[in-house]
Amino acid sequence: MAEQKRLSEAYWNTAYPLVGHGQRTLSVLQTALQESNGQQVSDLYGKGELIESFQQKLADFLGKETAVFFPSGTMAQQIALRIWCDRKGVKRVAYHPLCHVEIHEEDGLKELHHIETLLLADTDRLIRLSDVTSMREEVSCLLLELPQREIGGELPEYQELEAISDYCRQKGIRLHLDGARLFEVLPYYKKSAAEIAKLFDSVYLSFYKGVGGIAGAILAGEEPFIEQAKVWKRRYGGDLISLYPYIVTADYYLEKRLPHFQQYYEQAKELAASYNRCQGVETRPAVPVSNMFHVHISLPKEKLEPLLIEVYEAADVGLIPYVKEKSGSSSSFEVNVGDQYAAVPKEKLERAFDLLNEKLTEAMS
Amino acid sequence: MAEQKRLSEAYWNTAYPLVGHGQRTLSVLQTALQESNGQQVSDLYGKGELIESFQQKLADFLGKETAVFFPSGTMAQQIALRIWCDRKGVKRVAYHPLCHVEIHEEDGLKELHHIETLLLADTDRLIRLSDVTSMREEVSCLLLELPQREIGGELPEYQELEAISDYCRQKGIRLHLDGARLFEVLPYYKKSAAEIAKLFDSVYLSFYKGVGGIAGAILAGEEPFIEQAKVWKRRYGGDLISLYPYIVTADYYLEKRLPHFQQYYEQAKELAASYNRCQGVETRPAVPVSNMFHVHISLPKEKLEPLLIEVYEAADVGLIPYVKEKSGSSSSFEVNVGDQYAAVPKEKLERAFDLLNEKLTEAMS
Repeated sequence: MAEQKRLSEAYWNTAYPLVGHGQRTLSVLQTALQESNGQQVSDLYGKGELIESFQQKLADFLGKETAVFFPSGTMAQQIALRIWCDRKGVKRVAYHPLCHVEIHEEDGLKELHHIETLLLADTDRLIRLSDVTSMREEVSCLLLELPQREIGGELPEYQELEAISDYCRQKGIRLHLDGARLFEVLPYYKKSAAEIAKLFDSVYLSFYKGVGGIAGAILAGEEPFIEQAKVWKRRYGGDLISLYPYIVTADYYLEKRLPHFQQYYEQAKELAASYNRCQGVETRPAVPVSNMFHVHISLPKEKLEPLLIEVYEAADVGLIPYVKEKSGSSSSFEVNVGDQYAAVPKEKLERAFDLLNEKLTEAMS
Repeated sequence: MAEQKRLSEAYWNTAYPLVGHGQRTLSVLQTALQESNGQQVSDLYGKGELIESFQQKLADFLGKETAVFFPSGTMAQQIALRIWCDRKGVKRVAYHPLCHVEIHEEDGLKELHHIETLLLADTDRLIRLSDVTSMREEVSCLLLELPQREIGGELPEYQELEAISDYCRQKGIRLHLDGARLFEVLPYYKKSAAEIAKLFDSVYLSFYKGVGGIAGAILAGEEPFIEQAKVWKRRYGGDLISLYPYIVTADYYLEKRLPHFQQYYEQAKELAASYNRCQGVETRPAVPVSNMFHVHISLPKEKLEPLLIEVYEAADVGLIPYVKEKSGSSSSFEVNVGDQYAAVPKEKLERAFDLLNEKLTEAMS
């Protein structure tokens, strides 16, 4: 634990912490608010110009009829799945074994809705068309996450996605998109958000991943679906009197960063290549398909942490603020590319990776 | 609808809109943030100095072991009731027929938890000890709201509250406090928050009523109860990556306004008296016991609205921005006293009520 804290401190003490958009501090909110009109009136329990115009803007962006802003994706997605289950009268949904609903929500879907789940594919690969066509139990909805975050941010080819969507439509299975990182995959697919969203009946988007907002989510779909989602939002206690701190920041950072996702994607490929040329290091995917990837290093956490600290201190570049134990002999971590990457001078970055490679080679010899 | 909008506009167009702390605009957030340290690090999924210190501060204020910050009271209270039901193994709770859980949450408690409810007292009076001692069904928890907002903000005498608490403890019934307006009743009871909270097993507090924050709630109680509440908070999607916009503002306005609740209470009594001397007007309670009360006027909404607009325009004082239809022949509205009241010059206020009385007398003759 102490070493973990030391790694994080060493990371933030460098002149160039590399990942994401930098530290989540109050200045994120202050910056967005400086450009806001203080006389603008708050949203009021889901009503008002401030929330309604943002909802419509995102609905348009996604090519959907309408949308509703949620405080969290956890809430938005459970509700989407519940509505599709009620619509069909079948309390069962299908998704990946490592999807957010399954592993990060304390079983909210099951505890609050008693919805059964069918886990498709394995923990180390994507859901394929054949997984979907061979489902043995009836489900109301299939949830797909693009990219599949917990396996490094992998993506199916677009044709396979279309085939899955076609199959679900034929079979009366609703398709829900966990698009927490949808902005991030548009450059790889070379598609608009609306083109991708068209394959799905309901779409969830997040504003604090690549966008770099504070929190908040959008759920988009057809009018009757969204009207039901608003009722559930109130039931959950998500229909706050004012959600504007999240909406104003989501809008501000979306405008600021939407033009940069292509760049984040290119930089992620560059950064992954830098990792892959180091001894005992490989990224997953080998070539990223979004702004994210996972790094796997053949060194146990307790050996990797002090080694990284040495690199940070010598190069003044922070590579990652934490490391996870993968097995007794290897470690891993997740990398997201955001605004920070472009701020690091190229020669500093090269020096950091040269050092990392040297030290890893030494440690593994 | 058009007239309703005109009333609201006329209200906000006066130099002295009378109720609450003024309009809910972005400046509420901007003001609080100007005094914040931009380098302060965000809370992260319920962890970190920013959220933990505020939770402990409120736990201490309430004399409880610990506390957890929630995005909303709806979420906090449903969860409290669920935990008490699970603890006892009885899925039934008792509360007032006009409590928030019953009328403002789209039946979240029933839809998400399948908890039965026993409604005590009637829609026009408080829950009494005799209602509690004569319950015919077993319940896990009794929820009491102080003050009972939907009937104008009435309060039981403190001795009755103590007797209800004693009875519940004897009978193994958990007592939960809906303290959305707990700060507001301390002056009447002449008790500390901790003295009142001591009568209850769990306490919920809100930060956007008298405190005037943006949103957010605290749930306080013993450690194992709060630990379970945190699990449910995650299940609900309430464990946002960052809740700090609500926490920072709750703390800022709490510090600013906590010293003024005695004053709001005294002013509410003064303001209620001004209403009560007008023709066909009575407040409930006749003498307020907090900073709030309801006003009932023997004139239908469609006659009262234009009359109020005339008063606002002539006196440059806004009394209330909306009016509710009560029956075909009378109207009502809720008044909260906050910072705005003290800003109105006494003679302006007197003139407004003289005018109101004149016009009501005329309209009713």
